Amino acid sequence: MTLSWIDGAPADSLSLTDRGLAYGDGLFETILVKTGVPLLFERHLQRLASGGNRLALALELPLIERECRAFAAQLGEGVMKLIVTRGDGQRGYAPTPGAPARRILQASPLPAYPPANSVQGIRLFPCRTRLAEQPLLAGLKHLNRLEQVVARSEWSDPEYAEGLMRDTTGRLVEAVYSNLFLVKGGMLLTPDLSRCGVEGVMRAELLDMAEQMNMPVRALELRMSDLQRAEEVFVCNSVYGIWPVRALEQLNWPVGPVTRKLQNLVRQLLDI
Amino acid sequence: MTLSWIDGAPADSLSLTDRGLAYGDGLFETILVKTGVPLLFERHLQRLASGGNRLALALELPLIERECRAFAAQLGEGVMKLIVTRGDGQRGYAPTPGAPARRILQASPLPAYPPANSVQGIRLFPCRTRLAEQPLLAGLKHLNRLEQVVARSEWSDPEYAEGLMRDTTGRLVEAVYSNLFLVKGGMLLTPDLSRCGVEGVMRAELLDMAEQMNMPVRALELRMSDLQRAEEVFVCNSVYGIWPVRALEQLNWPVGPVTRKLQNLVRQLLDI
Repeated sequence: MTLSWIDGAPADSLSLTDRGLAYGDGLFETILVKTGVPLLFERHLQRLASGGNRLALALELPLIERECRAFAAQLGEGVMKLIVTRGDGQRGYAPTPGAPARRILQASPLPAYPPANSVQGIRLFPCRTRLAEQPLLAGLKHLNRLEQVVARSEWSDPEYAEGLMRDTTGRLVEAVYSNLFLVKGGMLLTPDLSRCGVEGVMRAELLDMAEQMNMPVRALELRMSDLQRAEEVFVCNSVYGIWPVRALEQLNWPVGPVTRKLQNLVRQLLDI
Repeated sequence: MTLSWIDGAPADSLSLTDRGLAYGDGLFETILVKTGVPLLFERHLQRLASGGNRLALALELPLIERECRAFAAQLGEGVMKLIVTRGDGQRGYAPTPGAPARRILQASPLPAYPPANSVQGIRLFPCRTRLAEQPLLAGLKHLNRLEQVVARSEWSDPEYAEGLMRDTTGRLVEAVYSNLFLVKGGMLLTPDLSRCGVEGVMRAELLDMAEQMNMPVRALELRMSDLQRAEEVFVCNSVYGIWPVRALEQLNWPVGPVTRKLQNLVRQLLDI
């Protein structure tokens, strides 16, 4: 039996009328747990709160925080997935205002990524699937993830650890389950996510980290031409940290000093 | 206990690792049932099959058809919702190729819409929520429906039976849970749905019906200016049939002869 809770109690099945299933009406967080502690937890809670505000989900945040900490303590080490949904629904899209959100917690083991991903870096698959521009949902880690499912099914060759996703007009956005960073002209750059994409917890951490180190950093509109001229490229998320990107089709990048520096700092955050 | 089945057997709860919950990785159909028979059933199955192809879902269609007919027979009268998902998943977006889709059937009573909706017609709410352009998913009745949830939560005044949805560039697309038709210059017009929107079963039925009656009909790009010049406007779906639209903000339309004619034909299909 894998560890899973609904609304604070052990459970492995969900009401069939849950709006998470019916409409993807909810949000999620994927949280690394080490020594019984959820890592980068304040940032995860912050993003969840902001998503809850934007979708008018009635989140009981102190309760969510308590449950996550208790669940992480039981899990010890692994990945904790928190899903919040708008709870049970009747027929029709209209939500019941103020209905308390349902809390679902699921555990999985630490993923076994090849160590080479962090050391030599990865090759990115060039996804044909484009992300739609939807400012209403941009940045949120919501449960409507068909674009990612279709993008991820474009390749099965393990040579590609991640895939590059652009929007329908060709702007760089992110990788399928990671955010994207470039180093160009000594500056740290990452795509602006006001039209689509997920505002990753590790991305937010790195943006703050760079500012604190007085490293020039910007979130802006980026295109393939920026990638062609980048000195370093990497992807990141809150579970694996940072993977240098060494190749995308004909393009190649070295694993550079900025990537290594941030990678070391992130390792201190995640390898507790 | 409400009537519900999973994979052909009575069940009221779902595995927590279902990809329908995790990613909205699936499709659904909302089917009117009268005298134990699912109505417009061939069209529902057709749309499901086409959606399954586009999302590479392994649908066992003869089995789905059998289960739906058996479920409808038990239900007698009401609305049968069929959800198919990609089944259980591990962590990560990558689908297991060929994994059989999970089949979920749920019953609800016939909705109690005010009879005036069909007779005098309805007022449309002008939704601010815009639909993103995503050709990859356009037309499909998939489980990623946050746009509809947000749009539907824009109004609670029962004066509005439906809401008009446009895309991010202002083109008319559909209503929140219905398709949209105009009569203009004696032609039956409906928005093209190659960029976003759901290809409704009743919409398909009406397009075929009009062709068979040699009524000039087209699916094309439509804007607010077309609505302003329309002689008749109506919305439709496979549960309620056709509702004339009598007003949207300052605009007003009569319940015209084309709407009444189609409404009578549709009534024969649904009032068995």
